[in-house]
Amino acid sequence: MNRMRLFTPGPTSVPEEVLLEMAKPIFHHRTAEYRTLFANCTQMLQQVFQTANPVVTIAGSGTAAYECAMINTIPTGGKVLALSNGKFAERWVTIAKRNKCQITELKADYGHAVSPERVAEALASDTFDAVTLCHSETSTCTVQDLKAIASHVRKTPAILIVDGITSVGAIEVKADEWGVDILVTGSQKALMLPPGLAFLSVSEKARKKSEAVSQPNLYLSLPHYLKSLVDNDVPWTPAVSLVRGLNVALSMILRDGLDRVIQCTHAYAAATRAAAAALGLSIFSSSPVDSVTGIVYPAGFDDKAFRGALRKQFNVHIAAGQGSMEGKMFRISHMGYMDAFDTLGAISAIEVVLREQGHSFTFGAGVSAAHTELARLLK
Amino acid sequence: MNRMRLFTPGPTSVPEEVLLEMAKPIFHHRTAEYRTLFANCTQMLQQVFQTANPVVTIAGSGTAAYECAMINTIPTGGKVLALSNGKFAERWVTIAKRNKCQITELKADYGHAVSPERVAEALASDTFDAVTLCHSETSTCTVQDLKAIASHVRKTPAILIVDGITSVGAIEVKADEWGVDILVTGSQKALMLPPGLAFLSVSEKARKKSEAVSQPNLYLSLPHYLKSLVDNDVPWTPAVSLVRGLNVALSMILRDGLDRVIQCTHAYAAATRAAAAALGLSIFSSSPVDSVTGIVYPAGFDDKAFRGALRKQFNVHIAAGQGSMEGKMFRISHMGYMDAFDTLGAISAIEVVLREQGHSFTFGAGVSAAHTELARLLK
Repeated sequence: MNRMRLFTPGPTSVPEEVLLEMAKPIFHHRTAEYRTLFANCTQMLQQVFQTANPVVTIAGSGTAAYECAMINTIPTGGKVLALSNGKFAERWVTIAKRNKCQITELKADYGHAVSPERVAEALASDTFDAVTLCHSETSTCTVQDLKAIASHVRKTPAILIVDGITSVGAIEVKADEWGVDILVTGSQKALMLPPGLAFLSVSEKARKKSEAVSQPNLYLSLPHYLKSLVDNDVPWTPAVSLVRGLNVALSMILRDGLDRVIQCTHAYAAATRAAAAALGLSIFSSSPVDSVTGIVYPAGFDDKAFRGALRKQFNVHIAAGQGSMEGKMFRISHMGYMDAFDTLGAISAIEVVLREQGHSFTFGAGVSAAHTELARLLK
Repeated sequence: MNRMRLFTPGPTSVPEEVLLEMAKPIFHHRTAEYRTLFANCTQMLQQVFQTANPVVTIAGSGTAAYECAMINTIPTGGKVLALSNGKFAERWVTIAKRNKCQITELKADYGHAVSPERVAEALASDTFDAVTLCHSETSTCTVQDLKAIASHVRKTPAILIVDGITSVGAIEVKADEWGVDILVTGSQKALMLPPGLAFLSVSEKARKKSEAVSQPNLYLSLPHYLKSLVDNDVPWTPAVSLVRGLNVALSMILRDGLDRVIQCTHAYAAATRAAAAALGLSIFSSSPVDSVTGIVYPAGFDDKAFRGALRKQFNVHIAAGQGSMEGKMFRISHMGYMDAFDTLGAISAIEVVLREQGHSFTFGAGVSAAHTELARLLK
């Protein structure tokens, strides 16, 4: 009866309605039935991305979709301004390197954002084909000031390619209003699905850039996806059961309302941050994102023992730090199929294990502080 | 109550056990639990591929896996001997072209195989990096003589890259014994899963070729997959729910026994061919494969009306011809979750609609001929 509680920043819990939808008998994808399903999904994805541009669906991980964005719009040897402040932003730099781009890297230490002013300065000093960044850097639980950065990029010939893998559907991101040319996300985060699908919206500016680019990859050829999408179709066999689940998951998000979902995610994050403060623990990031909170361990704590006890006693799954932060922090997700009950339950479980493993604090202080925030933000 | 009956050559029906397994709550993939699951799957895939070589699992379609095979093992400008006799084989030529390979194409008309002798001649006349072919060309329902072709290729420096998307698990293909360097398949055919996963086995000869190749794509980087596989891990987020389903589907195949599954697929195909003959209809291919049978329409038949009536009256779904054969033939799959009852039922339904739409034959002759074959081959 010890039910699993998933607080990892992807995969996140999948609603029962979505699981059962995906368990329905498979049907063929070269049919009017599939095109109707897929058209519904695309139209709902546009609402969640806040864009009127086409949103492409790929069978693959978020890495596949981000790579699709880059290789189809940046010419060989093209100039890339890459904001880099964590493990995922670094992966996009790796892709640029593999494609022999000229890379100007704007680095920030882990846990910090890159200031929009630095981006503006860099844009003033050179002409770029693309600016790449990770909106919500999952590895360091840090948010970039995307709106301000986009306001600088849109004045230049560069396109803005944004990893929104843990931002779309979790925090505010207005693709068209802000001027995000390509916005990428994955299925297993705020969209409440298993992993296996990834998505990217494509602005007219990005599409025009792609027309001048010839790249060899077929599976990730953006023109093939965009051409099929006109007929609500796909160039290669789609992951039909996941697309069925997508239809239900997006309907659930839009039924609650995207603004409300974002407000709730914010409330769970704020509650968790308030709890951490009340427990005498510090937040890792100087620019914390609402999708996932990184909390620094008390001195002397052992990451594996802490997370192991949470799993063993409560079947609560949280994530470790990544890269240089491994062992020094833990991460807890607020995305997707999540509510106030889950948030308070997770904080309660964390309090129990913190106390058992020797951290001193007033028992219940975390839950109390979290509840105060939830009551304030969700009334 | 009019239950859907899927006879399309992918997706094929997914067993209820597999659907329900995929509906179980999601769990995190960076865990010992996932690595154990994935190790089981890989070990079972090796049995189905009849190989001791690593078998890589990719979140994507069969096109992604075949492209992974080609771009990681054929150097830029490399020489490819491409057997081409249908829509899918042509796709692999397209990938070779996009990668600026020097292509020698051995073409056969749709519905015909390329003779092993022609392959031997071509191999004697030049040195190639790779030979590409589609073992079971789904578009034309045609099988290549892979064993004989492989016996020629293995004597040369070329690696043999085989599209086994509708052959692995359906017809005999012995990767190691025959000398297939890379064998590719997809989840939604004989493996009885929804689309969304694809697989490739990699011989030592292919791995050595890949070491000399530097290609830009990250998502389809074979070295990344092979390196992770040593620890039963994956470089990018895997499609966890589909991998869970894979574990159950492969267990079902191995429980019945791979040889028995292949014997049954052969019997259903032979029964369908016997039925077609008894109904006065001809088989499209001169080298028919057991995975899927292509039957030429009687003169004057309308494809859409015929398949539409089967769907409407019996909820039986068969496939149209592709490319130049569109409207001239229909295709019926024998792969995966299929039994004698399904085979006889499909033939019965086809008889009803054939008669209604004006074809003359002795009613019941198809079912009778099919049953005789089933009884002979499955005793």
